[in-house]
Order: sequence, then C-alpha cells, then structure tokens
Amino acid sequence: MESPLVLGTLSFFIAVIWGQPLITLLEHYRIGKQVRMEGPDSHQEKTGTPTMGGLLFVVPVLLITGALNLANLLGFTLIGKSTLLLFFCLAAHATLGAVDDWLGLRGRGKGMSARMKSGFQLVFAAIIVGILYFGPPDLYYVGVPGIPEYVSIGWLFIPVGILIIIGFSNAVNLTDGLDSLAGSISSISFASYGLIAYRQGQTYLAAFCFTVVGALFAFLWFNAHPAEIFMGDTGSLALGATLALVALMTGQWLLLPVVGFVFVAETVSVLLQVASAKFSRRYLGRDIRMFKMTPIHHHFELMGWSETQVKERFWIVGVLSGMLGVALALWNG
Amino acid sequence: MESPLVLGTLSFFIAVIWGQPLITLLEHYRIGKQVRMEGPDSHQEKTGTPTMGGLLFVVPVLLITGALNLANLLGFTLIGKSTLLLFFCLAAHATLGAVDDWLGLRGRGKGMSARMKSGFQLVFAAIIVGILYFGPPDLYYVGVPGIPEYVSIGWLFIPVGILIIIGFSNAVNLTDGLDSLAGSISSISFASYGLIAYRQGQTYLAAFCFTVVGALFAFLWFNAHPAEIFMGDTGSLALGATLALVALMTGQWLLLPVVGFVFVAETVSVLLQVASAKFSRRYLGRDIRMFKMTPIHHHFELMGWSETQVKERFWIVGVLSGMLGVALALWNG
Repeated sequence: MESPLVLGTLSFFIAVIWGQPLITLLEHYRIGKQVRMEGPDSHQEKTGTPTMGGLLFVVPVLLITGALNLANLLGFTLIGKSTLLLFFCLAAHATLGAVDDWLGLRGRGKGMSARMKSGFQLVFAAIIVGILYFGPPDLYYVGVPGIPEYVSIGWLFIPVGILIIIGFSNAVNLTDGLDSLAGSISSISFASYGLIAYRQGQTYLAAFCFTVVGALFAFLWFNAHPAEIFMGDTGSLALGATLALVALMTGQWLLLPVVGFVFVAETVSVLLQVASAKFSRRYLGRDIRMFKMTPIHHHFELMGWSETQVKERFWIVGVLSGMLGVALALWNG
Repeated sequence: MESPLVLGTLSFFIAVIWGQPLITLLEHYRIGKQVRMEGPDSHQEKTGTPTMGGLLFVVPVLLITGALNLANLLGFTLIGKSTLLLFFCLAAHATLGAVDDWLGLRGRGKGMSARMKSGFQLVFAAIIVGILYFGPPDLYYVGVPGIPEYVSIGWLFIPVGILIIIGFSNAVNLTDGLDSLAGSISSISFASYGLIAYRQGQTYLAAFCFTVVGALFAFLWFNAHPAEIFMGDTGSLALGATLALVALMTGQWLLLPVVGFVFVAETVSVLLQVASAKFSRRYLGRDIRMFKMTPIHHHFELMGWSETQVKERFWIVGVLSGMLGVALALWNG
C-alpha cells in the first residue's frame, strides 16, 4: 500500500504548486465561467471565476503517469504494467473538454455542438474499449459479487464498455454544479477502485488511482467555497471517462453504480425529470415534474438544505457507497 | 475488509435513525450551546443549537460493541477478541464529557472545575494504561517505521500511554470549534487506524474503528453547517481518548502525531500562543502573539479564509496525513 499512497502525496504537492500559476494564467486569458442561466439565483455570483481548472489535476497526473511509463520502457520496473491506456483516456477527454470550455467562453456560453461532442466521446470510447477487448487477455471479464469466478460476456463487452465510458463522463459533468462536489465524489470513487485494484494485486492500477486522488485534493484546495477555480468540462469529462476505464480494468464495473452512486443518482434524476415532464404533458395534459430542479443537488437546495448541507450529505452518501462497493468487490476475497 | 465495512454501514444507519429523536430530546431539555465569548463574532449565531450531540455516535457504538462482546462471551465468534477496554474508554470519557456539558449549561458556561476534570481524565487513563500494561502481553510494544521488530519500552509505557490518552482527549476538544471539523478529522483518523489494524490482522480492532467511523458520518449528517447539533465535550473527550487507545492497541502510537496531525497542530498552536505571549511580556515587555487567534482554525479565518475553506483545507491535510500515517505503519509490511 505504500507506493500508491506515496505517489498520491507526491501528486498532491505537484498539483498544489501548479495551482497558483494556473489560476493566474487562466485569469490572464480571461477564462472565466459563464454560469448557466438555469441554476438557482444564488449561483449567479460565480460568474468570472476561472474554469478549465481540470488542468490543475490532469497535467500532474499525466506528468507522473507519463514519467512512470517512460521509466518502465527504459527497463526500470517502477510500475509493473503499462498505464498508457489510462494516460490516453485522460488526455483525450481532457482535450475534448478543454475545447468545449474554450468554445463555450468564446461563443458566449454555446460551446461545441452536442452532436460533435457526442461524436468525439463515441470515437474515444470505441478506441479504448477496442484496445481492452482485442488487447491483453482477461480484460473483458466481469466480476459478479458472490460468484467466485470472473464471467466472460464476449463481444457484448464492446457496447457495454462504450456505454459506461460515455455515461460516466456525462454523469460527472452533470454532478459538477456545486463547489467541491464533483471533485470530492470523484476522489472517493477513485480511492475505492484504488483499494479494489490493490487487493487484486494490480498495484500499478492502484498507483494510478491514488495519483488522481492526490491531484484532486490539490484541486479541492482551490475549489473550496468560495471557489477560486472550476474544473469545467476539461475536468469532468476526463474524470468520468477515466473512472469508468479504471472500473473496466478491475473487472468490477458492475459495481460502478454502487461506488459512483452519487453520479448515477444525479444522472437518473435528470432523465426522470425529462421523462416525467414529457409523459405528463402527453398523457395528462399537465406539466408534472418529479423534482423541484435537476440535477438533484438543486432539488435539495430548493428544499431548504444549505449548499454546505447538500454537499456534505452527498459526501457521506458517497463515502458509504464507496465502502459498500469495496466490500462487495472483496466478497470473494 | 468486508466485516468492518458492513459494521460501519450498520452503525451509520442506527446512528442516523437515532439522530432525530436525540435532537428533539436535547431541545426539549434545552441543552443548547452557550458559545464561548472568545470566538470570532460570526460564531455568536450558534447559541442555542443542541450540544451533548456526542451521544449521537457514542450510544450506537456502545450498543454495537456491547452486542458483539456479549455474542463473544456466549460463544459466537463474531469478533476474535474482546473490545471491552475500548467500550470502557468510550463510555467513561463520554460520561465525563456529558457531566461537564451539563454543568456548563446549568452553571452558565462555567462547567466542571478544570482540576476535577483533569483528575478524572488521569484516573481513567491510568486504569486503561494499567490494563494494557499488566493485561495480555505484547500490548506495550511500539512499532517504529523502518524497524522490522516491535520495540519494548518497559514501564515507560505507563506515563507515555497516560500522556497520549489525556493529550488527545484535550486535543480533539480544542479542535471542536468549526461545524464538521472535529467529527470529520476524527473519522479520518479512526479510518486510518482501522486500515492499520486490519493489515495487522487485528480485525476486531478494525471493526471497532469502522463502527466509530460509520456513527461519526451520521453525526456529520446533522452537524453540517448550519449545524443542527454539536458534539460537545461528550463527543470530543470520548473520541480523543478512544483514538489514543486504538493507537496504543495497534502499537503504532508513534504515528499519532502524523495520523492526527490536525489535532496536534491545533493543540500546539494554543501552547505556542500562550508561550509566546508569556515570553514576550516577560523578556521584551511587549505582548507578541504568534497567531491572530488560537486554536489555529480561527487564525486562518481571521486571515480571510472562509469557514468552508478552513474546514475543507483542514480535511485535505487530515486525509493526507492519515494516508502518510498508514503508509509509514505498513513500511515493514
């Protein structure tokens, strides 16, 4: 357990030192957030805070992961196996998010067209899942809690894997609506899969997870309310897709809805809201909505919980679901 | 790892269900906090919120620990070893804290005399350390990071052990000055020692730690700003003393200042403040203070950090020091 924890600490310090120059840089180029109009009124004050802050954790993680892989290629066995696929996944989605953030700022809040964004997500996910499926063996097996042997689902792995990667990258994106929320829930999820990977003997994967956790802590340092920086799509798309890939690589991706319960709940709340509005309008002639506002963190805010209460209670749910996920993954030892 | 995590979850649900009736009860008997006069002005609004909230987590932990020990006595081996010493430590210090809280409310903020409180703390600590020292073997050894064998420090264990227990129960007490701060840092510390105990094969001790963590999460649910309840001395004395005892039982108590870095920093800040004021008045004729206000969380508030920033940054430091402590404890495997 030492090397993942040491890497996590290293990653934190690199990211924390990188934080201040990054904020200065983003402010210099006026990369400030335009708050979406549909949020509660109290969120309007956030306009102008630098976004694209995902670079705060993506860059250090890429640096460390890159360096470890380079050392690996040169014959030093710092990590047992290649983590280049994770490197690619993180870099590709962060770039996509950064382009989206950039266009959003320059195009006055419009961003990339939804179709183009989804197109890129599909291509990236297909490449990643393809490598998993046609690459080294055993990576398309799935662990089922309570069943000792991992189960092969054959070619079905391809559509399922793509769905999970795209789904989670959008889910983290939706969750990113309160200071510290998406960052902290992501760090809990990565730490949970880090523990699972460690117990499976996949130390290199655990090391990657804790590198992300450390860098996320540095981001959270600057993201604490009132936030000095937001992660933007740069951060959220990258975190979601990479978390899904980590889950696929542990074979314990059936537990993603448990470990990442908060992300799933946020997404499902949006889907239910849209569905209930459509259904009621069509069949009842009235506009009935299940929630006061979605994603669901806004619902609780409008119920009278303070922003801090929503956030801290979501964390508690996040940690508990992470613990439950780890327990289920270790069911068979 | 499953049974500690399952117990933690159970403990959370028991405590969360117990929370609302407890708050109603405390409000009924008007057990509301009188905020100390020396805090920053913005804290005055907190007067009236129920205190003695330590009962929220102490009672469920005692119930679960008691039930497991009873099962053990009856021949079911749910836990491998007795945790009655932990039960006693938690119950004794919670009772002492509750009496102090109660007298503080009835005596208009005065509480128990400092001498009487310290006397009880000394007696409790002496009993606990005595049982450790004269009881089952091997419990007075200490692990030193980097040295494979545990080292015996002989009878020195007695004064050192007493000092640690009293010191930590006061340290958590000092830290308890911002919503969610003492509770969350305690849960991180207990989780860290839970991991250490688990890796040592002391599953019963890990199970106890995660029972505390689960119950603390339930407390944090109600303690999120604006807090519906405070832990009071009932909670803080009990948590500090019990954390120290857990550390003693793992033999890794040399790492307490690492794992519980935030608690130590809070305490040291107060000592330095008092020392610098005394020293400068005596030798320089002027009143020079090292910090704007202590315990040190007030210092950062007065430096312009928001309450949320102080709290979340202290958490980050807490998690990192917990991780570092676990890494150091596992240095020798």
